[in-house]
Parts: sequence; C-alpha cells; structure tokens
Amino acid sequence: MTLVSATASAMEHPQTVKDCLGWAARDPSGLLSPYNFARRTLGSDDVSLTITHCGVCYADVIWSRNKHGDSRYPLVPGHEIVGIVKEVGSGVSRFKVGDHVGVGTYVNSCRDCEYCNDGLEIHCVKGSVYTFNAIDADGTVTKGGYSSYIVVHERHLLGYKIPPILSLFQFLLYRYCFRIPNNYPLASAAPLLCAGITVYTPMMRHNMNQPGKSLGVIGLGGLGHMAVKFGKAFGLKVTVFSTSASKKEEALSLLGVDAFVISSDAEQMKAISKSLDFIVDTASGDHPFDQYMSLLKATGVYVLVGFPSEVKFSPASLNIGAKTFSGSVTGGTKGTQEMLDFCAAHKIYPQIEIVPIQYANEALERLIKKDVKYRFVIDIENSLK
Amino acid sequence: MTLVSATASAMEHPQTVKDCLGWAARDPSGLLSPYNFARRTLGSDDVSLTITHCGVCYADVIWSRNKHGDSRYPLVPGHEIVGIVKEVGSGVSRFKVGDHVGVGTYVNSCRDCEYCNDGLEIHCVKGSVYTFNAIDADGTVTKGGYSSYIVVHERHLLGYKIPPILSLFQFLLYRYCFRIPNNYPLASAAPLLCAGITVYTPMMRHNMNQPGKSLGVIGLGGLGHMAVKFGKAFGLKVTVFSTSASKKEEALSLLGVDAFVISSDAEQMKAISKSLDFIVDTASGDHPFDQYMSLLKATGVYVLVGFPSEVKFSPASLNIGAKTFSGSVTGGTKGTQEMLDFCAAHKIYPQIEIVPIQYANEALERLIKKDVKYRFVIDIENSLK
Repeated sequence: MTLVSATASAMEHPQTVKDCLGWAARDPSGLLSPYNFARRTLGSDDVSLTITHCGVCYADVIWSRNKHGDSRYPLVPGHEIVGIVKEVGSGVSRFKVGDHVGVGTYVNSCRDCEYCNDGLEIHCVKGSVYTFNAIDADGTVTKGGYSSYIVVHERHLLGYKIPPILSLFQFLLYRYCFRIPNNYPLASAAPLLCAGITVYTPMMRHNMNQPGKSLGVIGLGGLGHMAVKFGKAFGLKVTVFSTSASKKEEALSLLGVDAFVISSDAEQMKAISKSLDFIVDTASGDHPFDQYMSLLKATGVYVLVGFPSEVKFSPASLNIGAKTFSGSVTGGTKGTQEMLDFCAAHKIYPQIEIVPIQYANEALERLIKKDVKYRFVIDIENSLK
Repeated sequence: MTLVSATASAMEHPQTVKDCLGWAARDPSGLLSPYNFARRTLGSDDVSLTITHCGVCYADVIWSRNKHGDSRYPLVPGHEIVGIVKEVGSGVSRFKVGDHVGVGTYVNSCRDCEYCNDGLEIHCVKGSVYTFNAIDADGTVTKGGYSSYIVVHERHLLGYKIPPILSLFQFLLYRYCFRIPNNYPLASAAPLLCAGITVYTPMMRHNMNQPGKSLGVIGLGGLGHMAVKFGKAFGLKVTVFSTSASKKEEALSLLGVDAFVISSDAEQMKAISKSLDFIVDTASGDHPFDQYMSLLKATGVYVLVGFPSEVKFSPASLNIGAKTFSGSVTGGTKGTQEMLDFCAAHKIYPQIEIVPIQYANEALERLIKKDVKYRFVIDIENSLK
C-alpha cells in the first residue's frame, strides 16, 4: 500500500518516557537499528497492545529507503501487527487485557465521512492515517510494528460504552484494532493485516466467491499466495502465472493450485485463452497486460493490487468482451474483521518464515530479491529486548 | 464497435434476383455508390423488413475505408437499422407485417452458448455475426442498412410457434430483430441500435441508474450525447468534458447538462477532483486517463466505450481509491429491447440530422471531422430509389 504524504509539520510525541523499544531506519540507506521512543498516553478510547509479531511488507522497504521521497526519519516500519491487549481505556468495551488483537495499515481516519461510516476507512475523504510515517491527529509521526507495543484508538460509533449485547451489532466499528480469533495462531495472523486484506477485499467486492469459477493469480509472493488460498477456499479453480518454474512444485503440492503456467510460454498462454473468470494481479514488476486480459472470458474481472510502473493496454483488450479492470489497496475495517474471522473459520493460514528482529535488515534484502516463501514474520515477542 | 475478421471464404448470396438496392463502397476509397444485390430468400424463422432509416456510425467509416484491413467489397455499411416488417416466415409469432422493428450491430450468433442463452449475444463464444462485412452461417457476406430491405433471423428459444400469451415471457428472445414501440419515431430509433445500446449497456451494468449520483461524460458525439440523455433520465448530475467550448451552450440548454468543463483547463479540472461517481468515456482520440481518473470518488467506475490508440495510466490512479475501469461494446438482445422500451417510456430521443442517401459520402466526411450534432440518420425510405 502507499502512504499518503502529509503536509502538517511532524513532531515527536511530547511524552517524555521513551519506553517503547523499536527498530528504526535513520536515513535512506534504510538500515534498521534499535531505537527507543515514546507512545502516547493511553486515552479513554484507546487500546494498548504488547506486540508479539509483525509481518514484513514491501511497504517497509519503500519507506525505510525513502523510495517515494516522503519518509520521515527515524522511521519505524511495520503494519502487519498482532499482539495481546495490555491495557484499555475507560471507554473501551469490546476488548479486555489479554485479548488477541491485530492492527493493520492505518490507525486513524475522520470517522465521519461516507466511507468511514461504511467501514471503508481506507477511502476516508480526509485521508486515513497510516500506521507508520504518517501524521496523526495530534501532529506526531506514527510509528509501526517493529516495536514492543502500540496504542491505537478503538472507539465504537456511538461514542459511549455500549452493553455487551449491542456489541454483536457493532461489526462495522472495530477500528482500528481487530479481534484475532482465539484459535488462530498470532504469528499467522500478522500477514493477514496487509497481504491478506489486500487481496480479500477486491475478491469479495467482485464476487469471486463463486464455487466452480476460475481464477488466475499473477505473482506468487505474500499477496499472491494469499489470493491462491482464498481462491481455493471459495471453491475456485486456481491457475498461477509465474515468470519462473522454481515455485511450481510447491504451488501444486503445498498450495494446491490447479494449474501453473509459465507466463513466457506463448503456447501455454494461448491454450487457456478466454478461460478465466477472474484474475488477481499481484505483480509489481512491469508485465504485458494485453496478454493476460486475453485469458479472461467475456465480462471477466481483472484486479490489480500490485504497483508496476504503469498500466498499458489496447482498448480492444478491454472493450471486446466488456471486461473490467479494477484496482485496490488494503481494505476497510469491516472487511478486515470479516476476513480474519473467515480465515479462522476456514483454517486459512499464510505460509510464513518467522525471523527475529535482528534479522530484519536481511529479511528486507531477501524480500527485494523475492527470496521468501511467502511472508516473513518478525517474532517481536521473543527477540525484541 | 469492431467487426471481427472472419476466416471463412466469402461469397455472394446465390439467389439470383438482385432486388435489394443499396449503396456500397467498392474499394478502400470508401466512396459509396448505388449497388444492386440479392438478400436470402425468407426462411421460416426470418423477418424481412423494408428499411426506412439507417443511422450513420463511425464503424461505417472504418470498414468502408478498410481501416482494419479486413473489409470485403462491395461493402454495404449501416448497423443502426429501423423499418417496417414486410414479410414473416411461418415460424415467426411475435412480428407481423406492418410492425415497426429495428436491427442492430449483429444478425446472428450460435444461440447455444452461455452468453447467447443469457441474452448477451454480443459475447457469443463462437462470435456474433456482425450486420455488415461479416460471414453469415450460410457463407455469404452480410450487408448493412444502407439498403432497401434486410432479412434477419427472429426465432424464439423454444424453436416452435408459441401462443401469444407466452410471448410475454420471451423478452430474452428477441433476436436479432427488436420491437420499436409504436409511439416512437422510426428515424429517432435508428441511433439507439448502436450508439444508444453502447452506452446504455455499461451504464446499467455498473448501476449508474441511481438518482443523485454524479456522472462525467467525455466527448459529446453520437455516443456521448446519448450517455447524457440516459444520465439525466436516471436522475444523475451530469458533467460533460469537451476539448472545445463550441458545444457548451447547446449542451447546457438543449441537453440540460449540469456542468460543462473544458478538459484542457487545469483549474476547472482540479476543482472537481474526486467528485464523480461515474465516467462514461466516448472519446476515440488519445487523451490522458490519469487526469480523468482523478475526478472519480473512491470506488468510482470509469467506463470506456471509445477506441483510442491505447489506454495508459498509473496504477496509483486505479488502486488508490479502489477504482474500476471497464469497457464495453454495444450490448445483448435483452438489453437492446429493454433500452428501446426505456427510451419510449421516458421520451428519450437522440438529436439527429436526417439526410438522404445521396448525402452519405458527405455525411461520412463530416462524421470524421466531428461536424455533426449528434447523429446522422439516412432517410432510406424517401431517398433510396
């Protein structure tokens, strides 16, 4: 996902007790090292959580290395955060100490616009406040999950403490902290908060949960492998497209994909012309869109969640067959909680490689080289001391 | 719309009586002149109609001048055809002599695939047979509506003559001949068969019939002015984008658009950033997509029906705000009949300039220069002798 550049002047949090231990980048080299900083004092609508794990997303590379020119150092990355509630404010009714919770790619929004009211805070008209490198409502720079704890707002819509029975109807209102079902491993939950919701949101929006339909997934990284898992859970026939055969055996055996196509093989590609109902494209390297669009059936849907340098295709690739090309970034709070519950109910777990915080710099290097199957998760709890 | 190149060897119709008078192009100069040819003998499932009017579509320019390299001469253009039934086959139950009918951009399809069964024959897996310059099932080259009459298949799904009461439920099955409501002027109906259905189809598919929402229309030609009319009928706030101010007064007064924006005016464009729910883009000249996409609200829908040389935009323009970019060409038989009925019920009439067949060459020249408000309709009935 992309962090929007904020214009307010950034400041450090005024609280003087720098009791949060994190790893931060100090300059565009992106090299991470230990860094002590302050989090805000717990407010009445806040939840404070001890972070147990944090997933490693490509966004961590982008902003730790100032790829978009808007990084604010020291920069603590990480927006696939899970942990255990250690303290709640007096107005918080739905979480208690000890609960398993997650925090995703944003920690605030206006809570008043049509999108916020609809559980689509990612589209907040005033801009959602991203989990790191953004300016929060109090003027401080947000700091992410490569750290020991985090304080996030968790206020229900009505603005007062509601009876527990009513909380059943408050599904829209988990923001910006989500419930991780008790039977779901915390480490596995981390990648769901960005990689998972990023593919789940457009898949649900475009009604891909139709058993028997066919899905193509381009790219088999953190996002792609989650698209495969959701696709299989939805009962779809899943074809993976990759530039190399190196992931083929594992895709077929471990992920259970139905077909694996080397995208440079013109014959293989031609053989499946007009055969797919849906495509989820997670690739951020440049690739030819016309070729993939020709694999869609009429009225098929192509979803882009990657960020190649540009999108370019012939109008005929789109118009003939009335195809749809749609984009997406992460998702809203409503969808995020729904996705977490769906993963627990269907036993969908990301493939993860758990690493200590001391491995973070190497993990980012390997992520750049696409040398990960399929998501790094930092074991904050046991390594960040 | 685009005619798909057929590979079968083309032949003239074997019937010897060349009783159909048309105007045909003989070579890539595209110059049209009188031409006598044979239509097929009326079959049991056929309707024969005396053509009263034919709209002039840009497709007529493309294929009369062999712009796609697949033209078959002599070529009789025209696929916005209306007329009066002069004869019906023994199996035809829903039309009788004297009925007002229309024929659009295709005259045949497999009638057996998932799309044909769904009234979406334009997406027929075997390819729909276009109204001119295509190879029909009998191997002959189809000839369009710049002619005195046409014979088209009109068979209901059940394959036998049905009682009139059942025909109420046969709305899906008007193919490839549509009923023009009696109170609707035939000349006005012609442009609906291509220009009308081309914008109506994606507007309905993407739920643009939501009063109070906002629509941008790019280009104010045959398609664009119909998008404006449907938009107003749907209760939308309609903004027209144009490269020149020449159509502004008329757009505001005659078409009743709510706003008219010169697309080269950066300030005007910026002022309406993120304000539109929908865009219908009818422009076939190259234009910058990022700029227009920035005008859409989050989750907004951009529909392309024009054919610029390419589509190119930044992934951020699509992904941030989870926007949808969708294409379309004409529509299915179900939608076509629905659109005709909708236009009659809501008194929606295209703005037309009626010309004699002898003016056809000049009309095509003026169409190329965009010098038409907003659709030429050839008065076949009174000028083709």
